[in-house]
Amino acid sequence: MMRIDYHQDGLTEEQKAELNGMWRRCVRRILAATTLAGSGHPGGSMSSLHTLLLLYSMANHRPDNPAWEDRDRIVVSMGHISPGVYSVLCEFGYVKEEEFLLEFRRTGSAFGGHVEHYVPGVEWNTGNLGQGLSAGTGMALAEKLKKTVPSRVFVLMGDGEQQKGQIAEARRFAVKYGLSNLVGIVDRNHLQIGGKTECVMPQRVRDEYRAAGWNVIYVEDGNDFDQLFAALRRVFLMDVDDPSRPTVIVARTVMGKGVSFMENNEKYHGMPLSEEEAARAFQELGMENPIPELKKKLASHRQFRPPYHPAVSAPTLDTGVPRTYGTDVKTDNRSAYGAALEDLARLNNSGPVPRILGFSCDLEGSVKMTGFRKACERAFYECGIQEHHAATVSGAISREGFVVFFSTFGVFGVCETYNQHRLNDMNGTWLKVVCTHLGLDVGEDGPTHQCIDYVGLLRNLFGWSIFIPADPNQTDRIVRLVANMPGNVFVGMGRSRTPVITDTEGRPFFGGDYTFVPGKADWIRRGSDAAILTYGSTVAQAVEAWQVLKDQHGIECAVVNCASIKPFDTESVIRASETGLIVTVEDHNVETGLGAIVASIIAEEGLSCRFIRLGVHRYGQSGKPIELYREQGIDSRGIIEALLEARQKGWLAA
Amino acid sequence: MMRIDYHQDGLTEEQKAELNGMWRRCVRRILAATTLAGSGHPGGSMSSLHTLLLLYSMANHRPDNPAWEDRDRIVVSMGHISPGVYSVLCEFGYVKEEEFLLEFRRTGSAFGGHVEHYVPGVEWNTGNLGQGLSAGTGMALAEKLKKTVPSRVFVLMGDGEQQKGQIAEARRFAVKYGLSNLVGIVDRNHLQIGGKTECVMPQRVRDEYRAAGWNVIYVEDGNDFDQLFAALRRVFLMDVDDPSRPTVIVARTVMGKGVSFMENNEKYHGMPLSEEEAARAFQELGMENPIPELKKKLASHRQFRPPYHPAVSAPTLDTGVPRTYGTDVKTDNRSAYGAALEDLARLNNSGPVPRILGFSCDLEGSVKMTGFRKACERAFYECGIQEHHAATVSGAISREGFVVFFSTFGVFGVCETYNQHRLNDMNGTWLKVVCTHLGLDVGEDGPTHQCIDYVGLLRNLFGWSIFIPADPNQTDRIVRLVANMPGNVFVGMGRSRTPVITDTEGRPFFGGDYTFVPGKADWIRRGSDAAILTYGSTVAQAVEAWQVLKDQHGIECAVVNCASIKPFDTESVIRASETGLIVTVEDHNVETGLGAIVASIIAEEGLSCRFIRLGVHRYGQSGKPIELYREQGIDSRGIIEALLEARQKGWLAA
Repeated sequence: MMRIDYHQDGLTEEQKAELNGMWRRCVRRILAATTLAGSGHPGGSMSSLHTLLLLYSMANHRPDNPAWEDRDRIVVSMGHISPGVYSVLCEFGYVKEEEFLLEFRRTGSAFGGHVEHYVPGVEWNTGNLGQGLSAGTGMALAEKLKKTVPSRVFVLMGDGEQQKGQIAEARRFAVKYGLSNLVGIVDRNHLQIGGKTECVMPQRVRDEYRAAGWNVIYVEDGNDFDQLFAALRRVFLMDVDDPSRPTVIVARTVMGKGVSFMENNEKYHGMPLSEEEAARAFQELGMENPIPELKKKLASHRQFRPPYHPAVSAPTLDTGVPRTYGTDVKTDNRSAYGAALEDLARLNNSGPVPRILGFSCDLEGSVKMTGFRKACERAFYECGIQEHHAATVSGAISREGFVVFFSTFGVFGVCETYNQHRLNDMNGTWLKVVCTHLGLDVGEDGPTHQCIDYVGLLRNLFGWSIFIPADPNQTDRIVRLVANMPGNVFVGMGRSRTPVITDTEGRPFFGGDYTFVPGKADWIRRGSDAAILTYGSTVAQAVEAWQVLKDQHGIECAVVNCASIKPFDTESVIRASETGLIVTVEDHNVETGLGAIVASIIAEEGLSCRFIRLGVHRYGQSGKPIELYREQGIDSRGIIEALLEARQKGWLAA
Repeated sequence: MMRIDYHQDGLTEEQKAELNGMWRRCVRRILAATTLAGSGHPGGSMSSLHTLLLLYSMANHRPDNPAWEDRDRIVVSMGHISPGVYSVLCEFGYVKEEEFLLEFRRTGSAFGGHVEHYVPGVEWNTGNLGQGLSAGTGMALAEKLKKTVPSRVFVLMGDGEQQKGQIAEARRFAVKYGLSNLVGIVDRNHLQIGGKTECVMPQRVRDEYRAAGWNVIYVEDGNDFDQLFAALRRVFLMDVDDPSRPTVIVARTVMGKGVSFMENNEKYHGMPLSEEEAARAFQELGMENPIPELKKKLASHRQFRPPYHPAVSAPTLDTGVPRTYGTDVKTDNRSAYGAALEDLARLNNSGPVPRILGFSCDLEGSVKMTGFRKACERAFYECGIQEHHAATVSGAISREGFVVFFSTFGVFGVCETYNQHRLNDMNGTWLKVVCTHLGLDVGEDGPTHQCIDYVGLLRNLFGWSIFIPADPNQTDRIVRLVANMPGNVFVGMGRSRTPVITDTEGRPFFGGDYTFVPGKADWIRRGSDAAILTYGSTVAQAVEAWQVLKDQHGIECAVVNCASIKPFDTESVIRASETGLIVTVEDHNVETGLGAIVASIIAEEGLSCRFIRLGVHRYGQSGKPIELYREQGIDSRGIIEALLEARQKGWLAA
């Protein structure tokens, strides 16, 4: 494997010859793989190839152990240059050439159209542009936290991609936290799908990085190994204007570099050569055309390279002793979350390296992270009003050996950042997103701040768990539990004070020894006339309604708290249906939340029961939560009215 | 009403005295309203008050006609300073003081916690930060398109807000399209909720605007009317470095300006004074405390100011004659969309002002907007890889007298921009979002590009219609129809070629006189053993399955095309249930799409039928669409297998 020492003054002739040989083999692979697949992105793969080759030659990494802890990270943010990346990984022994060439973009293959970590050597799945730099900041921050001599993190980006706003956010975060080990590299080929970057969206890339406070190095010819080496050498040696800051290398390159008719032609951004064009290209390069031979092999190629699954190693936390809030306590779930999080910090962050980290977006106080911060200042990261970046950076660092909590309001942590969490999910992150201020319960801040779609959104992400506690006691227990849960977890809560939910004896239902079990609902009240299924802020309303229905109307309803929205407790719905009437109640869009989940179970299981959904039917107003609940019929009165109406229709035995 | 001529060299003493009088009344209102409501944001309302007052004094606007076409627009991007905005609107006669003071943040009121257009004089609902500048660019662009002397658009922004990436995107767009009539004003009080902006997220605001190519004017004391007038005068007179470019005024202000203990205290960003504190403040200001009097009135205040609903006036387009694609045609829905859109441009954009506009994000060719662009270059806006901005700018301009289409891939136009469309929805925009590359049908580009959650996401937005055509003929008809539809509309399609759907006689089902009716499904095939409900790319699979089931297995299924996902055809589900078995098939997350809608109807209507959902159960791979369909059981074979299995279970009469 090629290894170049950055202490050298320059590249030797032998090294250049070897690099050029590698370059030729990689170009051949890029062209062959894309033409063979009939799709893919050769243009940018070729413009950035010199950079990739030199980077892998100079960086610390071990192909025999792609997860080696002390490796430098190379994040490729413009995931469409996968043919270039895979070609280079062949050169360094991560994968075999023929695997890549025969499996690229084929169903069942690890070699996807955009880089994925199923191929060893790939650090982060990308494809949606603009997120790679944020992911890189997460890795760079993890290194800074863990080591006195942190490894470097290189993030290769496209120049069209620089238009994404999230990059501006990541730049600021990197400066704020002094990520001197972070190096951005912009493949400045001045072309994107739509043509010249100057025509599609004019942008002064270097000025923007300078304005953000980064060191900027310009490489006049980014397809020249000598010039690139000189630039990379500087960053390895920290020979930059301000070594305490991150650095970007802007390398002027040529799209399609190496094949005359591909050069500077945006057509080849996202289109492969035809077989005839490929033949011409190989001829021009003085290479044998590998395609006919590969096509023969293709027919019999059945055994695909198994996908690589990098392990996530989060520490196991001491989760302490749950707090029990008595019925006399008037608090909100947010505060219970904050107290539990502070406990976790005190129990686990006393060592030199914090084990649990917190991220927020200018809402530390509102989301009750202040106790956590004060318990361990160096474990808390204030991201500013930059939610897209915050979602990605917290996701990325959750794969680096930390337990990570990201908290903000629901509308910012879910609605605004859905696509970032989607990419996190594909990257197999282990992020805990705890959002406060869900629902109409936000009250006076009005509709822009009322997140009434968190279930509707997050249910689309296959890897996420969703838990919505009913009261401070359940919040405490859920927060402690998820701290040690694998995968991505969402925990949601409203803004207002919540009464402690009790059993029929008046004791805290979720206090003491209560254990939250994902996938299991809590039967808070028994009753055989109907079953009210609910979660979060409306549980208290349902319990209130239960009492009135029982005392004043002789109706005995079961009340079921479905705090575990995903995984969901199908069994409880089946049991609930035996009452003959299921009523779902939620401070959430009535079409896309609990009601939709329960309806699917009723329909798929063929349950015969009546079914009523109560929820939010239109954007809320600015007003007191209880008045907004009333307006949309999800307060206790609304529940009572629904049950009485059901009785009038003859839907109740009672 | 105060009117100040910007041709003046400076403010007269009389004007300053009047402005100061206005300022005092407004401060009084801000403090009274927030304290009375018990919540709200007085701090920023007071730091930006001088700016707001002067702006409304100098700008062209008519309180007697808030929708006056020639008005200058004032967009307030940090919507939380609503108390300041409403106070100023009282001063200029838009609303009555007492209405505001007694109704602020109360259920049923127009005076929400964040500015909303229900109050006349408010141009754009905000609350989610970072979107106002994009909205303003839309308005500025509309003016440039419509007039030789365009009105000005002022966008007042917070300084914490500058951290949002979308602002960087909007800045570039404004420069690219020469929006010299756009003026940003940054209320630089150096505080945000979390404390000093320098601590929360350091940022060189002016450097960033300069790097983006904006004119930058700095006001040393933004709480001084003389200095502010001098700056505003320059932008009115176009006395800036480069009058062809947009300008930003960065005004250094003091949060809580005017009350000693509020000044420079971030606590008052989002917290009102207590009654005691308010009394102290009024005393310090030498004002009578209005709160006791107002509290008395509050009890009997019942009749709220009705919300103002600004009319949206989109032109009615000539939609021409639908194209019919014969069964011999091999094309994709994207191309049919492109052709219809081009027809619309040719029919409607020949005048000096285009009536229909197109926006895209570096994917013009892929989303087939090239014909449209070529038909009318000045009607096409290439936004670059800046989807957040594109969603907002296209939304904003859709309220300014244009029919607006925004097209990109589903994952960028829905997943990435959900929250922008959410705010568009609250703003009552009339945007047509046409997304291509939906579903596993994207194929080789892999999971990051496969949008399998568009129904699951968009169904959360109350105001959006969702249509997913089955073939090129239906695409053509839907596109022509939505061109003249009010409200926000989503039209979605896959990437691949789609066979023309035929009737049993082999004639194009959606050709000729077929009319698409929102809320009505198409019964493509009849059959009484079961009903297959589907939409989009899987309709052809269902029709294929229908034939095999009929010919080879003696099973007669109805095939129902549910192109109108929202509004939905409940009646057709009821009819379908009469077969005894409903099968939904979709290239979409199986939990959150058509299956969820149909399940809800089955459960709510108490329909007794068996129910099977076919859809996407995990993120797709990179491979050929039909192979990916096979893998997840949504190709014709998967449908056939599901029906045969159902028969084995005895779920079919046949």
